[in-house]
Amino acid sequence: MDRSRLAINQITTPSWSLKDAIDNYAKLDIAGIGIWRDKLTELGTAKTRQMLDATGLFVPSLCKTGDIAKLDIIGKNAALDDCRKAIDEAAEIGAPVVVFVGGGCGTRSLTDARKRVGEVLSQASEHARTVGVDIGLEPFHPMHAAERGCINTLSQACELRQEIGNEVAVILDVFHCWWDPALTSHLEKATQLGVASAHLCDWRVPTRDPVMDRAMPGDGAADISGFIRQLEVSGYNGPYEFEIFSADWAARDPIEVVHICLERYDRYCQEV
Amino acid sequence: MDRSRLAINQITTPSWSLKDAIDNYAKLDIAGIGIWRDKLTELGTAKTRQMLDATGLFVPSLCKTGDIAKLDIIGKNAALDDCRKAIDEAAEIGAPVVVFVGGGCGTRSLTDARKRVGEVLSQASEHARTVGVDIGLEPFHPMHAAERGCINTLSQACELRQEIGNEVAVILDVFHCWWDPALTSHLEKATQLGVASAHLCDWRVPTRDPVMDRAMPGDGAADISGFIRQLEVSGYNGPYEFEIFSADWAARDPIEVVHICLERYDRYCQEV
Repeated sequence: MDRSRLAINQITTPSWSLKDAIDNYAKLDIAGIGIWRDKLTELGTAKTRQMLDATGLFVPSLCKTGDIAKLDIIGKNAALDDCRKAIDEAAEIGAPVVVFVGGGCGTRSLTDARKRVGEVLSQASEHARTVGVDIGLEPFHPMHAAERGCINTLSQACELRQEIGNEVAVILDVFHCWWDPALTSHLEKATQLGVASAHLCDWRVPTRDPVMDRAMPGDGAADISGFIRQLEVSGYNGPYEFEIFSADWAARDPIEVVHICLERYDRYCQEV
Repeated sequence: MDRSRLAINQITTPSWSLKDAIDNYAKLDIAGIGIWRDKLTELGTAKTRQMLDATGLFVPSLCKTGDIAKLDIIGKNAALDDCRKAIDEAAEIGAPVVVFVGGGCGTRSLTDARKRVGEVLSQASEHARTVGVDIGLEPFHPMHAAERGCINTLSQACELRQEIGNEVAVILDVFHCWWDPALTSHLEKATQLGVASAHLCDWRVPTRDPVMDRAMPGDGAADISGFIRQLEVSGYNGPYEFEIFSADWAARDPIEVVHICLERYDRYCQEV
């Protein structure tokens, strides 16, 4: 596998502005950049698109929409409106997918929260089809079910994809799914249905914070080689996107971090 | 449902000695007590059995054995030896089940850790059969896969029970399984195979510590009524054991804590 499938999500080098991230990733032989919507406002979609075109970087996905419980507090259909807006922004910068995160159930019904995710996905899928952008549903680790994401397994994501249609794709993240005993048996089906991006990171031992303590692939408990091999065997040919939410890695020199991502990509992806 | 199925695991009132816990639970109309092996050494098995017989308290389960990764560091077969010892202790105090916790995989292979759990369970099951005590396999929340328990779903526990035999029972804990989208569909099968105890607690929002921050049933995100109703519909007729690992609840007056357990049992179990 050459480096054409290697992307870094900009959350991995959060001290860089979007402009600096695009410039530096391109200089450092990174093929793609995962972009965050709050960072996108620094440049706006038109200027960002120009920079992407000029550097040749691809965008595996735009992060993020969803968070239904939070957005629904703002007003009726706020989550749906945000999802449509994110789809438009993705189209404007040439990203094929917008990352959709379910949001937690809080102390309310988990079953209802999951139903609401299905409703919003279904309602947003029409706009996604019109615009030509997929909604990338990312199952979240079960420990996030109450606070961040109520869709917790690849199996659930595949079911929603089948219910709703082609506009829903799956985004797989090592941190969220490495523990899942049903992962292997669902990968082939998921790949056939559409896996938009594979997020690489690792499960740090111990994990000291539920969000900001992920490890670099190879430094944690997950079977990174096995994950990539299984994806490839299942027919996956999409991007591998380094997404390291980590206070430790955020504090390091971003150029060094990018070099380590490159080294890990070569270690785990080139052998496949 | 009357109070004959109500037990409290002594970790819920950790400031009490085993003697005080047995005395106070009995006085306060609690039918059963979940006992920990480190606490058991305070009295020894014979004296504990005497006190249990005198008060009429039943023991839903003795906690705990397993922790294979940790015990294997001590020496070959240390985990198996500990499991056999725990089975003997359970028999001596009249507990029908010893709680088995897989232990984490650390940064080594999760797949191998899971296989090793199966091996130890299988090897220990012979002794369990001879002695007449079941091994209660407790699936642990996926966030514990690396550090505490590598069996993470009811489905996995059922598979191991089917592979190994009748001596393996399942222990279900709200904290560990409330998020599982496959829980409902596996409950009937699990109950047929044998659910030894149902641990009641709740998922606190936010959960500030992976171990010591569980909520009292009704105070968190889990659907306690639904959990109990589904268990009953599936044919479960075993104990409901309050097991609240919590620094907050541990700091409260244990008599007050027991009264709150009683009140929650009445609220959620009597309506069924």
